[in-house]
Amino acid sequence: MCGASAPSPEEAALARSVGRRLAERGALVLCGGLGGVMEACAEGVREAGGTSIGLLPGWDPDEAAEAIGVALPTGLGEVRNALLARACVAMVAVGGGYGTLSEIAFARRLGRPVATLSSWQLHRDGAQIDDPDLFAAGSPAAAVDWALDHVPD
Amino acid sequence: MCGASAPSPEEAALARSVGRRLAERGALVLCGGLGGVMEACAEGVREAGGTSIGLLPGWDPDEAAEAIGVALPTGLGEVRNALLARACVAMVAVGGGYGTLSEIAFARRLGRPVATLSSWQLHRDGAQIDDPDLFAAGSPAAAVDWALDHVPD
Amino acid sequence: MCGASAPSPEEAALARSVGRRLAERGALVLCGGLGGVMEACAEGVREAGGTSIGLLPGWDPDEAAEAIGVALPTGLGEVRNALLARACVAMVAVGGGYGTLSEIAFARRLGRPVATLSSWQLHRDGAQIDDPDLFAAGSPAAAVDWALDHVPD
Amino acid sequence: MCGASAPSPEEAALARSVGRRLAERGALVLCGGLGGVMEACAEGVREAGGTSIGLLPGWDPDEAAEAIGVALPTGLGEVRNALLARACVAMVAVGGGYGTLSEIAFARRLGRPVATLSSWQLHRDGAQIDDPDLFAAGSPAAAVDWALDHVPD
Repeated sequence: MCGASAPSPEEAALARSVGRRLAERGALVLCGGLGGVMEACAEGVREAGGTSIGLLPGWDPDEAAEAIGVALPTGLGEVRNALLARACVAMVAVGGGYGTLSEIAFARRLGRPVATLSSWQLHRDGAQIDDPDLFAAGSPAAAVDWALDHVPD
Repeated sequence: MCGASAPSPEEAALARSVGRRLAERGALVLCGGLGGVMEACAEGVREAGGTSIGLLPGWDPDEAAEAIGVALPTGLGEVRNALLARACVAMVAVGGGYGTLSEIAFARRLGRPVATLSSWQLHRDGAQIDDPDLFAAGSPAAAVDWALDHVPD
Repeated sequence: MCGASAPSPEEAALARSVGRRLAERGALVLCGGLGGVMEACAEGVREAGGTSIGLLPGWDPDEAAEAIGVALPTGLGEVRNALLARACVAMVAVGGGYGTLSEIAFARRLGRPVATLSSWQLHRDGAQIDDPDLFAAGSPAAAVDWALDHVPD
Repeated sequence: MCGASAPSPEEAALARSVGRRLAERGALVLCGGLGGVMEACAEGVREAGGTSIGLLPGWDPDEAAEAIGVALPTGLGEVRNALLARACVAMVAVGGGYGTLSEIAFARRLGRPVATLSSWQLHRDGAQIDDPDLFAAGSPAAAVDWALDHVPD
């Protein structure tokens, strides 16, 4: 799960719902461990009794949002975005800027399916790309269902 | 410099021209060190008497394209994309897939100016984003001039 | 927790005991996720009802030892040793070769206390170094007690 | 080339001599790019008309010592030690603390030959280890000759 560090209230609500639904489906939820959609998602995970792991960019476990279950400081800065894409089996992105775009790109480069909510659209030669493993979802439920249904075997 | 590992002949010609022009302007040219636009770019650098450095994804210096000046194996796989974005002061992207998109996103996340040639267009909310440090160039000359003019102080 | 990938039966027994004791003390146990002392340690953690996380060097979560609780593929190769040293608050090393030595060195470089069992001794100028945060323990109980007592605030 | 960031005058002189000799033998010299033995080594390389590359731990190319030929900021912190060990074909270590020990360990883990000058000695079971690819050299000339003679094919 990845997305905006400074989300709108709507994006935060989407992220919380994504976290709750992922946990209800039994998924272990990885995120970047800081505030914004990461924190909202971790709160949703906690509400549903699930487990979240935060891969922190810095060295200090205390940087993690309070709702994060397990905080792993990596000290890698933005490189932890690549690590998150490697460590997951499917991704849901909510909102977000260039950091989120790097996570989407890495995840797709590695073959992970990516569902987006209120996030980037990718064009080439003036037209939106056609990638069956990249899905612009209309709701948290649709994003979570699609992502979990598209986990590679 | 980054871009497609399996470029069209047109993209390879663009990359060679970019490499030659960067070297003529005295730039040290970093790339991913393998084939495709990386190799074409390195050939252009060599033609102009410049120096290229290839940050290889694997462990074996012999994986580098023959034209690469200095090959540095990183063993980091696609994470070397993030390293390339960190190590550069400006980026030119030619063509490319999700790996190139990750480099563009990382470079912009880190504040590096990025000129693109025949590459990704980024949209949000149905419209192309407005980012003064991301430039869709019409020619190698325009890409190189813009990139070098936008290197942060 | 780190150590030999091809341990002696004695080292494997030490590692299993370390894992069990860490879990009994309520510690979250990080290791490299593969076989050898990592697997033995994870088995000890599981016996005590605790949680282990394996930071795998490769891309494939199925590479993890069966007893690992949560497997996180990093794709970083031996660089994950540095990550393990960053992510932990204290380290116990059992046996091991140069990979384990790199983990001990990184952990001490970052200020983490390190207890060793049947592992490296470090000399400078012909004499064993004097480092109050590096402890050659005589038993798993001593290693675990010392490590948990020396976690920095 | 790696070693102490705060060397004694004797260690700095050793490092400068190592740099000069490596460059005279035509080697491309990689180091960590900061002060101490890294800087002294780079000065030696420059005196001999050679090329040095500094893999910086931080983001800022201006952190590099003035004598470094090419500065590559990695932003990886101490993880760049692992990168240095990957990128080299042989290592010379002068003095140094735990950071240098991590570089020695990584280099040996990856099969690179390592010559040491006034640096760590490694013991197991109470005796110095017997590793034909780890050489405690008595002089810069001996270190450089041995290292270049032991580069794997």
